[in-house]
Amino acid sequence: MMKLGLFIAGSGHHIAAWRDPRTDAEAVLSLRHYVEMARLAERACFDLLFTADTNATFGPDDIDVWSRTTGALRFEPLTLLSALAMVTERIGLVSTATTTYLEPYHVARLFASLDQISGGRAGWNLVTSQAAAEALNFNRAVHVPHGERYRRAAEFAEIVLGLWDSWEDDAVVADKASGLFFEPDKLHFLNHAGEHFSVRGPLTIKRSPQGRPVIVHAGQSDAGRELAASVAEIVFTVQQDLEEARGFYADTKARAKAHGRSPDHVKVMPGVMTVVAHTRREAEAKYARLQALIHPALGVKTLSEIVGTDLSPYPLDGPLPELPPTSGQLGRQKVVIDLARREKLSIRELYMRVAGQRAHRTICGTAADIADSLEEWYRTGAADGFNIMPLTFPEGFEDLVGAVIPELQRRGLFRLSYEGRTLRENLGLPVPASRWPTRH
Amino acid sequence: MMKLGLFIAGSGHHIAAWRDPRTDAEAVLSLRHYVEMARLAERACFDLLFTADTNATFGPDDIDVWSRTTGALRFEPLTLLSALAMVTERIGLVSTATTTYLEPYHVARLFASLDQISGGRAGWNLVTSQAAAEALNFNRAVHVPHGERYRRAAEFAEIVLGLWDSWEDDAVVADKASGLFFEPDKLHFLNHAGEHFSVRGPLTIKRSPQGRPVIVHAGQSDAGRELAASVAEIVFTVQQDLEEARGFYADTKARAKAHGRSPDHVKVMPGVMTVVAHTRREAEAKYARLQALIHPALGVKTLSEIVGTDLSPYPLDGPLPELPPTSGQLGRQKVVIDLARREKLSIRELYMRVAGQRAHRTICGTAADIADSLEEWYRTGAADGFNIMPLTFPEGFEDLVGAVIPELQRRGLFRLSYEGRTLRENLGLPVPASRWPTRH
Repeated sequence: MMKLGLFIAGSGHHIAAWRDPRTDAEAVLSLRHYVEMARLAERACFDLLFTADTNATFGPDDIDVWSRTTGALRFEPLTLLSALAMVTERIGLVSTATTTYLEPYHVARLFASLDQISGGRAGWNLVTSQAAAEALNFNRAVHVPHGERYRRAAEFAEIVLGLWDSWEDDAVVADKASGLFFEPDKLHFLNHAGEHFSVRGPLTIKRSPQGRPVIVHAGQSDAGRELAASVAEIVFTVQQDLEEARGFYADTKARAKAHGRSPDHVKVMPGVMTVVAHTRREAEAKYARLQALIHPALGVKTLSEIVGTDLSPYPLDGPLPELPPTSGQLGRQKVVIDLARREKLSIRELYMRVAGQRAHRTICGTAADIADSLEEWYRTGAADGFNIMPLTFPEGFEDLVGAVIPELQRRGLFRLSYEGRTLRENLGLPVPASRWPTRH
Repeated sequence: MMKLGLFIAGSGHHIAAWRDPRTDAEAVLSLRHYVEMARLAERACFDLLFTADTNATFGPDDIDVWSRTTGALRFEPLTLLSALAMVTERIGLVSTATTTYLEPYHVARLFASLDQISGGRAGWNLVTSQAAAEALNFNRAVHVPHGERYRRAAEFAEIVLGLWDSWEDDAVVADKASGLFFEPDKLHFLNHAGEHFSVRGPLTIKRSPQGRPVIVHAGQSDAGRELAASVAEIVFTVQQDLEEARGFYADTKARAKAHGRSPDHVKVMPGVMTVVAHTRREAEAKYARLQALIHPALGVKTLSEIVGTDLSPYPLDGPLPELPPTSGQLGRQKVVIDLARREKLSIRELYMRVAGQRAHRTICGTAADIADSLEEWYRTGAADGFNIMPLTFPEGFEDLVGAVIPELQRRGLFRLSYEGRTLRENLGLPVPASRWPTRH
């Protein structure tokens, strides 16, 4: 069965969605809005809700451009997902948290706590920070370079996984008569001392009904793929082209195997923006209405952030210039540069293709069109599922739930009801054994 | 009106509460338990729920002693309170977060997000870390010393307060027609560069219906009192003696005035463990049953942590030795040492007085006894309210809600229904003006 995530976001995934007459422009900070979307996603049997995150806004020089978007406002995702855990029962709750500027002990606690609160439905999207601006909110003058970010991320993940196993599954005996609450030799000190961190442990929280949160990774540079292959159970990815996506899928599975893991235990889920209507023409018109609202300065700025180079000095209708190597999101950069070269797009044409949806693929059409495209990717080795990014909320998501999900279900591609109670059960992932075997 | 907080904690506030036959020994990690206690506290019109916190357990040498308590397990409090925000409507949600090992940008975000999720019911108990063990989970070999902890705390608070004012109240215009989401000159960069931190801002979240979370402080050393006087709106305190408590109360109000603040805007709330029964004798028997379950090694260890010196080499039935100055919780140490000297207690007698409830005062008796004592403290300038610590949950709290709260209400000392929707409205605290006056 296909796995589906709902990438939640205020008024919608299009950068101009907040201007759509049928969205709440301030949905980005409306708890009621997120509650309604989470419940709808659960009624539709989505595997998980996904939230992106950044611990920063933008620089003072860019404020005029970004004041045209809602991107500077968001809930802190662990608090938001803990709230949503109380109004849902089955859907997974996955949040991004950076390994570049946060502390592993704190991150391990936050996710372990969400995992307990939700009864085993948490997932951690382990990322390295994309936004150089985060450095400035965490006592640094400059962003940590790409290579070091990945070394730090690998060490960070090792610590978090270790802390999550602090308590053996039968450590707590809670024996009222003898007064022994836990067996001392079943609680473990991590004693990690590495290049970037030293963390003694143990964690103040036990393993959950799913053992530990599901690990997600979204990097697609070489370093990102290696990290994903070693620890990730879901890989979110940006893919515009079916052949490229198949290559990425095969590479990810092969790397997981090389790390001694089952390829089935790494689910590859590209992001897809969906625009649904009764006819293809109507869907294209919906999309075009929002595309027309992208101010050129915002389009060029967004594209500049994705490719890591300021494109404002170049002619809008000229080609993408040769770009120097950067320290940004290398994988996403490559996808976008490849797209420009493959289709010979001008800067304006390119930003119109990627600015609205942050470089993710867009499928525009009827429910059958969208189901056809998802099915093709799913059946031909390009995806195990998708991270769905509706054009707008709630309308764009309601249309998807009302038409596309039933179509996928009719084709036998998507579940009619949840298989289990934990995120791992629904994804078909095993409960990871603790590193400390249970002794009797 | 008296202000009442409910200090929430697994099976109860007595260190042996988990062994009581009528408690759930594993309540400390039971979400259902916390949901039930939160709802009961709200039905009883408590001002707020309070959670303590520590980002660590204990050292490997002490594990045998601490394995007799539930203290090594707890939810991460921001995730827990975000969940509880969804099952309550009026009660305040106050969590501890340390300024010693966390980052101000992250802490500002977490509380601002809880404040939005709860509709303006969040409070931050700003502390400096007591537990030296936290250092070892945050890349340090030794604990930050007392004086530096307070300098760091003051700078941390300044940053958090600044970040909470990032967005002017009318910054977001969300004008769909023009495409302007916010007015650029109403979003502020903090640009803080100080001794311990540099943080640019702005924060990714707006002010809430109560302006910003309520600031709580619990330190009572000289440095702690100064910090409280400058920023705190609630002061939690450990007080055993009525005269001492009056002195602390008067000193706190005077210091607030010296900082140019209204003394009414700093609420002094001592912690009180309550043991309620139909007769005084029955209450004392209830208490004695749990007291008898304190293992001497655990009693001595707990007392040692409070006074900051290992007392295990000293005779149990001998007096408290002269104690060297320490880097721990100076205020609480003084209260406990004063108690031992005043009442000429042996080490055993002293730990029996303070180990069960971490040095807080215990009131044991009928509902009328407890109401009498609270009323005396409230009416004679020792307290604006209390942070209530029931002996056990749920029973000890149900008894309090069933008998003591109605008694306080009959006496006109406690509300019959909530005055408002935000924590500030219920506490009678003003909404702090933003540092950026609204311009038109």
